Amino acid sequence: MQFTVTFFLLVSIIVSLISFLFAGWLYQWVKNRPSSNKRIAEVGTLIKNGANTFLTKEYTVLAKFAGVAAILILVFLPTPIWKGNVLDNIVMALAYLFGTVFSAIAGVIGIRIATIANVKTAEAAQNGIKPSFMSGFRGGAVMGMAVVGSTLLGVTLVMLITNNTTALLGFSFGASSLALFAKAGGGIFTKTADISADLVGKVELGIPEDDPRNPAVIADNVGDNVGDVAGMGADLFDSNVASMAAALVIAASLDKAAGGTVNTSTVFCYAAIGLLASIIGVATARMGKHGNPTKALNSSTYVTTALFGVLTALATWMFNFQWRIWGASAVGLLVGVIIGIASDYFTDDTKKPVHNVAKASETGPAFTILSGISYGFLSTLPAMIGIAISALAAYKLCDPIGPGYAMYGIAMAAVGMLSIVGMIISNDAYGPIVDNARGLAEMGDLGDDVLEITDSLDSAGNTVKAVTKGFAIGAAGLTVIALLGAFISQVNDSAVVLGLEQITGFDIMNPIVFFGLLIGASIPAVFSAMLMLGVDRNAQRMVSEIHRQFREILGLKEGKEGVVPEYDKCIEIATFGALKELIPAGLVTIIITVLVGFVGGVQAIGGYLCGNIISGLLLALFMSNAGGLWDNSKKYIESGNNGGKGSDAHKAAVVGDTVGDPFKDTAGPSINTQITVVSLVSSLMSTLFLTLSIFH
Amino acid sequence: MQFTVTFFLLVSIIVSLISFLFAGWLYQWVKNRPSSNKRIAEVGTLIKNGANTFLTKEYTVLAKFAGVAAILILVFLPTPIWKGNVLDNIVMALAYLFGTVFSAIAGVIGIRIATIANVKTAEAAQNGIKPSFMSGFRGGAVMGMAVVGSTLLGVTLVMLITNNTTALLGFSFGASSLALFAKAGGGIFTKTADISADLVGKVELGIPEDDPRNPAVIADNVGDNVGDVAGMGADLFDSNVASMAAALVIAASLDKAAGGTVNTSTVFCYAAIGLLASIIGVATARMGKHGNPTKALNSSTYVTTALFGVLTALATWMFNFQWRIWGASAVGLLVGVIIGIASDYFTDDTKKPVHNVAKASETGPAFTILSGISYGFLSTLPAMIGIAISALAAYKLCDPIGPGYAMYGIAMAAVGMLSIVGMIISNDAYGPIVDNARGLAEMGDLGDDVLEITDSLDSAGNTVKAVTKGFAIGAAGLTVIALLGAFISQVNDSAVVLGLEQITGFDIMNPIVFFGLLIGASIPAVFSAMLMLGVDRNAQRMVSEIHRQFREILGLKEGKEGVVPEYDKCIEIATFGALKELIPAGLVTIIITVLVGFVGGVQAIGGYLCGNIISGLLLALFMSNAGGLWDNSKKYIESGNNGGKGSDAHKAAVVGDTVGDPFKDTAGPSINTQITVVSLVSSLMSTLFLTLSIFH
Repeated sequence: MQFTVTFFLLVSIIVSLISFLFAGWLYQWVKNRPSSNKRIAEVGTLIKNGANTFLTKEYTVLAKFAGVAAILILVFLPTPIWKGNVLDNIVMALAYLFGTVFSAIAGVIGIRIATIANVKTAEAAQNGIKPSFMSGFRGGAVMGMAVVGSTLLGVTLVMLITNNTTALLGFSFGASSLALFAKAGGGIFTKTADISADLVGKVELGIPEDDPRNPAVIADNVGDNVGDVAGMGADLFDSNVASMAAALVIAASLDKAAGGTVNTSTVFCYAAIGLLASIIGVATARMGKHGNPTKALNSSTYVTTALFGVLTALATWMFNFQWRIWGASAVGLLVGVIIGIASDYFTDDTKKPVHNVAKASETGPAFTILSGISYGFLSTLPAMIGIAISALAAYKLCDPIGPGYAMYGIAMAAVGMLSIVGMIISNDAYGPIVDNARGLAEMGDLGDDVLEITDSLDSAGNTVKAVTKGFAIGAAGLTVIALLGAFISQVNDSAVVLGLEQITGFDIMNPIVFFGLLIGASIPAVFSAMLMLGVDRNAQRMVSEIHRQFREILGLKEGKEGVVPEYDKCIEIATFGALKELIPAGLVTIIITVLVGFVGGVQAIGGYLCGNIISGLLLALFMSNAGGLWDNSKKYIESGNNGGKGSDAHKAAVVGDTVGDPFKDTAGPSINTQITVVSLVSSLMSTLFLTLSIFH
Repeated sequence: MQFTVTFFLLVSIIVSLISFLFAGWLYQWVKNRPSSNKRIAEVGTLIKNGANTFLTKEYTVLAKFAGVAAILILVFLPTPIWKGNVLDNIVMALAYLFGTVFSAIAGVIGIRIATIANVKTAEAAQNGIKPSFMSGFRGGAVMGMAVVGSTLLGVTLVMLITNNTTALLGFSFGASSLALFAKAGGGIFTKTADISADLVGKVELGIPEDDPRNPAVIADNVGDNVGDVAGMGADLFDSNVASMAAALVIAASLDKAAGGTVNTSTVFCYAAIGLLASIIGVATARMGKHGNPTKALNSSTYVTTALFGVLTALATWMFNFQWRIWGASAVGLLVGVIIGIASDYFTDDTKKPVHNVAKASETGPAFTILSGISYGFLSTLPAMIGIAISALAAYKLCDPIGPGYAMYGIAMAAVGMLSIVGMIISNDAYGPIVDNARGLAEMGDLGDDVLEITDSLDSAGNTVKAVTKGFAIGAAGLTVIALLGAFISQVNDSAVVLGLEQITGFDIMNPIVFFGLLIGASIPAVFSAMLMLGVDRNAQRMVSEIHRQFREILGLKEGKEGVVPEYDKCIEIATFGALKELIPAGLVTIIITVLVGFVGGVQAIGGYLCGNIISGLLLALFMSNAGGLWDNSKKYIESGNNGGKGSDAHKAAVVGDTVGDPFKDTAGPSINTQITVVSLVSSLMSTLFLTLSIFH
């Protein structure tokens, strides 16, 4: 059968609307779960208000940033307004703003449901693990459906309205620039609160986690929401949009060369099927007889993966798509799963790395750190090889179709990997919800049985997180390779307009490319350093505040009836610090990119992007896995191994966990977004770099 | 004036002989310093014997390794023996062995003088800081002169005898493969002993550093010699040879194209002048009126640098060399100094990073680690930009001379940077000598005045080390870029013979290149992880042994007269462990290189080398600077800041220092050698990769 592109665009819109309806149904389902505990409702409201305070302040700052960026885009992109077509600039600026708004909406929906689901999950735990799991999972799924629905709807609308892939890059840049700040800001917020709460509470005073006496405890729970739900949602929204944008930019340039229309259809068709598969996966998720939440989460992921493979094969057959393209997307998905499993090995508490780090902790914190860093470094190899092989396989599969198809194959592998992202986000957002539920159960005094249930749900969240994180980094890896392809397409489009020579690639042996490579490689290191120093500074501020409260509020330390800490002071510090620290890190990244482009032109930028991708992937994998490894080593010791809680090994493991926190929840996952932003800035500014750079 | 290449080869030989004579004179001078203290002589002998034990065992293992490698070379390189010219293979195998022997000799000379100079320096401190400084400095200079003399002599002889740059790559590979193991093995040895001695001695028992009751104290002092003197010497010998080899390979191919002979002369002439400048710098080094050892070390470096600049300018004018080439080498030297100064900023105890890490330590070890890692990441930016700019400047300077000269310019920038390596090594080897002297003064009970002098000499060694290390990494960076150029020359030479197409570069957009890039980038991480895990495992073994001795040897802990620990047991553990751990790390690196080459051919290897260089430089800079930063933060606190010795901040800083030790003395500096080895393996195997790979 032959269908027009418009057919697939309409199907995409319908599927994304279905996902919104489904998200609405899930939202109502969660909201209608019973809740009666007054104390939990109180604390839940505190968390909700704290999260809203942060989001309001953050989005106010970001709205200003987006406004400035939109004006700059209006004046300069895709070509300076006095040189090119004014309408193009207006479309680009609007597409950019559209991207930021979509990203913000996805974040707000996530926060809204997460701050309801946490309460419901905590209370449901009184009736057993199954209802509690369902509340947590379906709460997470609202976020999953909303993000993927927004992606598909946004991309489709931009293409329907503008039919211009450059505008699509503008939309993607809007999503990225907001994700950069949401992820980094949320990451700084959450880890500031988490570290400070643990440091004073657990380490200095020896009071339990989530103890209501701790002034940072609400900020900590707010942090789970703004960092892990809103930030992570923005991050995956960004990756998802970027992967589609890269594929569509390359497809459009293939289209132009061939005069066909099949290519873009495939992208939309596969993306729509991925969303459908995720909807089915979410809808059928149930906990098995033995009540193992990890299995429940993983099995619904496998259902989604299998469904995607089968349905896309069917579609390929029905709509006469290229089988080689299907192969590329299948390879992408497969390798994504493999990378996830490899990440799991390095962070799973039944495997050697966790055991060895726990053992090393017996000799003191220095060895916890050294062994964790070492395993973190080692863990990069399988993932890097996985990404390398999937890129190579996608290339070899699609190269025979025709010139230019090799890079399209890589882009479709990324689309394939990200196809099940709805499921991934559902699993990922489940984590902070049940983590919050655990805190609420503790603060609401629901008893040890309930805590045991929420603990087991929380632990499943951590385990699954390692897999999904590996998956997300792998997908981002392929996406940014595809974005490099999109960059070349953009450069050549501009070159045609300017009457310049086409470029075919970036030669490592060209010292201008090498110049870019070296500087690009150092950016992820500098970016993550700035974020971590931000957490460091901010946590020191908050620790002083907690000390002050324990000193000045009489009866607080002793837990005297009716004495409550000033929770909002801690939330304020975390909010203010996060906003203060995130802006320089984001700006430095963008400014250096622009400088390199104006010094070395597109060749330097090609090298710069490549260096950025490579060292970014390396550091993101290292930091995420080392962080997860330290977290689980601590938990492993806490469950009675190597001396158990309170032993020297445990103290050392806590140091490891504290170092790992900003690794895995602030810097590591923000690097993905940093790479995407840099790639998109480069693509959008390609005309300027072509015409205004010092060297060529 | 016009002179033949042979003239410059003879001059090089004469200059290298002068450096040997000068080294001999320095050796005698140090040896003739008075020494009388019996206890020091005893301990000195223990250290000497320990070092010799390790070297003998290490070189026995390495001789076997080199033998196997030589046989493999004989059979397969440059072309399989049944396909090519047998004589070529014999020359290559001999050149390889020649390289390993030269490297081993440089190491042995270094150890011999270092284990004499430590005793002399300790005793001379009784007469004041100036004579003590001179003993330490001239001891280090013996190593400096020997290494650079060997480099120049070895390279010159290989060229005189074979007149074949491929054989020179074989010589360089011999030097590299030995350096890889010497640096890694020595690095594991020294940090095993250092960490274990500190952990049990300083942390658990609270006895001073270098206390003779500590069973690991002799192993610790031996480690300074085998790691920091022999290992470092092998490392810089390797870089130095590689930089000359890369320049000569490229010069030879330019020669072939142009039919001239000027190019190779420049390399030898500049290298000879660099050695001469170093000799003069060493000979004129004196401590000033105010007795500041840091100033004395730095000022002799600046004398050498200035002399090199002036003399090479003179030579360029006299011998009609290209001024642009001179410019490239001057740029290299200048940027080397700038990188050194930038490294200094991040590790100097009068600057912000050290103060902030010390401040962060007040909140606990997790913050020591987080802030140290963050500054370590930040510290990569100036150095990466420096290397990027020097590569670009050298390119822009030399590109106008003619096609191919751009890469030659980069190679000459590396030669320029490494020209003053004689001085650098002298300063570097001074460090472990005075460190040892400090230990001897402590163990020989020479009193607090003497300890104060050796402490101040030791501290100067640490400060200068930061500069020289930055310098060494910068030089290695340019060298490996030049080696990439040498790789292309080799590939194209083979391509001519095989009747294949010439390659001009490696396109990032070619997925086979990208495949190589991703895998190559993960190798330095994996390599350093294996070394650090080796130190970790080995230190755990040694800590158990120290515990055993304190438990079983009665009176040892109390310091009963006549009770001595079993020092040799600790030396044995360090030796055995180092040899056991270094082999897998080295082999994995080489095997993955060969696999990538046979899968993806020369294009994959081009990407692989590039990825390796970029992530290797990034990690080497990060690890060296973070390690130095932690070391100096600890010392800064010990000198009375942030609570001083024994405070919580101090305990946290000790954790940082322990993590930093294998960073800066095992993994960080070994990465340089790892990159060189991989580059040379690739160049040597280029014919095999061209003919036998699965993909092309």
